[in-house]
Amino acid sequence: MKLYEALAEELADLMATGVLRPGEKLPSVRQQQERRGVSPSTVFQAYYQLEARGLIESRPRSGYYVAPRRVAAPEPEVSRPDAASTLVDVSELVFQVLEASRAPGNVPFGSAFPSPLLFPLDKLGRAVAASMRHIDPWSTVADLPPGNAELRRQIALRYQLDGVHVSPDDIVITNGALEALNLCLQAVARPGDTVLVESPSFYAALQALERIGLKAVEVATHPRDGIDLDALAVALAQHKPRACWLMTSFQNPLGSLMPPQKKQALVELLALHEVPLIEDDVYGELYFGAQRPALAKRFDSLGIVMHCSSFSKCLAPGFRVGWAAAGRFARQVERLKLTTSLAAAMPSQLALAQYLGQGGYERHLRQLRSALAGQQQRMLAAVAAHFPPGTRVTQPQGGYFLWVVLPEAVDALALHGQALAQGISIAPGPMFSAKRAFRNCIRLNYGHAWDARQEAAVATLGALARAACAAAEAGAVA
Amino acid sequence: MKLYEALAEELADLMATGVLRPGEKLPSVRQQQERRGVSPSTVFQAYYQLEARGLIESRPRSGYYVAPRRVAAPEPEVSRPDAASTLVDVSELVFQVLEASRAPGNVPFGSAFPSPLLFPLDKLGRAVAASMRHIDPWSTVADLPPGNAELRRQIALRYQLDGVHVSPDDIVITNGALEALNLCLQAVARPGDTVLVESPSFYAALQALERIGLKAVEVATHPRDGIDLDALAVALAQHKPRACWLMTSFQNPLGSLMPPQKKQALVELLALHEVPLIEDDVYGELYFGAQRPALAKRFDSLGIVMHCSSFSKCLAPGFRVGWAAAGRFARQVERLKLTTSLAAAMPSQLALAQYLGQGGYERHLRQLRSALAGQQQRMLAAVAAHFPPGTRVTQPQGGYFLWVVLPEAVDALALHGQALAQGISIAPGPMFSAKRAFRNCIRLNYGHAWDARQEAAVATLGALARAACAAAEAGAVA
Repeated sequence: MKLYEALAEELADLMATGVLRPGEKLPSVRQQQERRGVSPSTVFQAYYQLEARGLIESRPRSGYYVAPRRVAAPEPEVSRPDAASTLVDVSELVFQVLEASRAPGNVPFGSAFPSPLLFPLDKLGRAVAASMRHIDPWSTVADLPPGNAELRRQIALRYQLDGVHVSPDDIVITNGALEALNLCLQAVARPGDTVLVESPSFYAALQALERIGLKAVEVATHPRDGIDLDALAVALAQHKPRACWLMTSFQNPLGSLMPPQKKQALVELLALHEVPLIEDDVYGELYFGAQRPALAKRFDSLGIVMHCSSFSKCLAPGFRVGWAAAGRFARQVERLKLTTSLAAAMPSQLALAQYLGQGGYERHLRQLRSALAGQQQRMLAAVAAHFPPGTRVTQPQGGYFLWVVLPEAVDALALHGQALAQGISIAPGPMFSAKRAFRNCIRLNYGHAWDARQEAAVATLGALARAACAAAEAGAVA
Repeated sequence: MKLYEALAEELADLMATGVLRPGEKLPSVRQQQERRGVSPSTVFQAYYQLEARGLIESRPRSGYYVAPRRVAAPEPEVSRPDAASTLVDVSELVFQVLEASRAPGNVPFGSAFPSPLLFPLDKLGRAVAASMRHIDPWSTVADLPPGNAELRRQIALRYQLDGVHVSPDDIVITNGALEALNLCLQAVARPGDTVLVESPSFYAALQALERIGLKAVEVATHPRDGIDLDALAVALAQHKPRACWLMTSFQNPLGSLMPPQKKQALVELLALHEVPLIEDDVYGELYFGAQRPALAKRFDSLGIVMHCSSFSKCLAPGFRVGWAAAGRFARQVERLKLTTSLAAAMPSQLALAQYLGQGGYERHLRQLRSALAGQQQRMLAAVAAHFPPGTRVTQPQGGYFLWVVLPEAVDALALHGQALAQGISIAPGPMFSAKRAFRNCIRLNYGHAWDARQEAAVATLGALARAACAAAEAGAVA
């Protein structure tokens, strides 16, 4: 961690624990410099970062102040899914919603992606061009699975930074994380088998299960710290699943982050039951804190964790480069890749190997995290200001999704239709459940630059939700 | 067709029908010019093409002569597969062989690809660079299935040239043809279902069936004109398959080409039984004749033909851009693509759209076809010269594979091992059968520039095969 990041984190902690209170003036740059012995630029960078995260505000000719505590809505409760397994049938709804969200011109709160303007597309373009200039013709037919050697080396180096030992030979490059996850699933489960997922769970996981004919068991999940291990233990004993598919950091849609000790306990529990973990970690780099969250794979001594990630959400959307580090299942995943789609696209692989090798990725990530953290604060404040009383909302420590639990009177599918008519896309809760639960919940994307249009869109959503509450109340009275 | 191509084709016909005989002198350029009224350059180009195809030879200060009829081995007989269905289990063997074939330095007769030196990688590199310079950031998240609009338009234009009407909206871009074929299969078949394939059949088709838990029925296939329609009719009635997966032009490994009338009869037969055809057409552009072979899809009035192809074998290996034009199943294939690997890689799609738009593709294809045709002649002659008596071999009208049926005494798997020890890879016959049949057959790749090393490698293979025959004879005598 850099000096300024450490300083920012320290101050953020003071604010979180109430040592520094809303409206209070922060020590001046000169004070920090003299008392702490750090350079002015370190202090400035720390304060800029805190400002970008929405935690402090600068007042002209006065200094920096702790931002007023946004009147955030309270946190949602832990989910209570039905314990029975279900054959999944969520695709039709998901397709309808995705189709609607793609219409250009809509406010993209329902989108699955952050704004593409947040990514270094010009640098990536130059990396593609440079890598194609020096291409070895034979590499075009030799780069079969597991994939480009230099790219796998770069990915292995990043694992090393995260304290995980993964050999480049055990990394299989895939067409995005989605293919990696699908291959891992096929490596361990057969049609009719059961797989444990979070509740709510990422719809693509549900769709993958549906396509392969697998049964999903949704397990209670806390909106802040992830899947409930007690509930998981019960489900493991009861359902004898073939795998567990979890997003351990910044789960989609909850944004929940399992603390390191909980991840360790998770891996130990699964090892006990000999159930592999498919760790979907595509948001792991988008943390707002001082350090990348630990990977569950870090605690994996038996090779049962299949860690899957990609560059699609943090660097290069559209390049479709993901990977699986599938532990003891690496060879099976490699072979499945060969028979499913042969190899990943060579220009994308070469470009990312080139980009990662030349440096600048960390700087890009810092900017991206800071932008997302700031946008989260703005959206949280807007939701608190406009949504009806009784609304609950997550405050994730990373990623770009809020999970909003609305009063029971609000039907998310109806709200989706009404919002769309006003040019706003949202992701309604039933997308995230094999049983179409969460009918009063929505997922909102804060991955786009905050502006008046976004603020107005939240106000519109709030008004629609309030109207639904009022109509329900009138109905109850009459 | 260009004037010189028409002239070359006319002369090739005269040679094929015996009007022009081996060793006979061709009309001089001046004669052609005066009698036919064509320009000298047209005649030269026609003669150059015929020379590249190995059909004529130039003799210094004398002129062009019909090449001596290479003493080609006779054609193999039609396959007689077991009529029962089988659960497929061919992957292990295929992986062993592919792994061995990838070792650099080996003579790549076992390779699945033509030489990468035959492709315009420099132009493609510039196309990648140019397309990335003008990229619309929003396209990186909007180019979800069915894929880049301009690329789909270019592909639809090529269908139009082939007399097939396919709307760009019905084309789904995939990660190579293999993914397209897999998605088409999943759109129509469920685990336990039966699918009809050729015999011998492409091993990736067998692997795909194996992975999805489908049963394969291998149908008798003629090495020259493809699947036997009588045998197919019997299999359709007997097995009630969910799909038929065929390579209608230059089948891998046979190189067989179904004539247009036979393709039409095939589609009519399948329509009668309401069985969809998955038409794997990745070699269709690699024809040596005057015209692209008709597509079975051309005769498809009901939308039951799912035509799959790619640019991997004819333009851009490693770019992993293929597509499916899946007729009435197009929407299902599009959705399966979304849940399997989301989208195809954007840099690859943009580059190919750019390359196809700027022209030059046809010129590249003409050069590629001419190179492959010439290399085929050289390999056919080498096989005839070096392989043991009793050897049969196909003479495909396109593609880059020969199918060699050796005397019964030769075990292709043993030959594979012996050849590898001498730095030569081959593809043994059992790879191409769910039942590991064709144990005395091999597939040879002639997609690489012919040189003394290749000639010597064929001689080595011939010597190994002759030794196996001699050993068997000695054993029979003793």
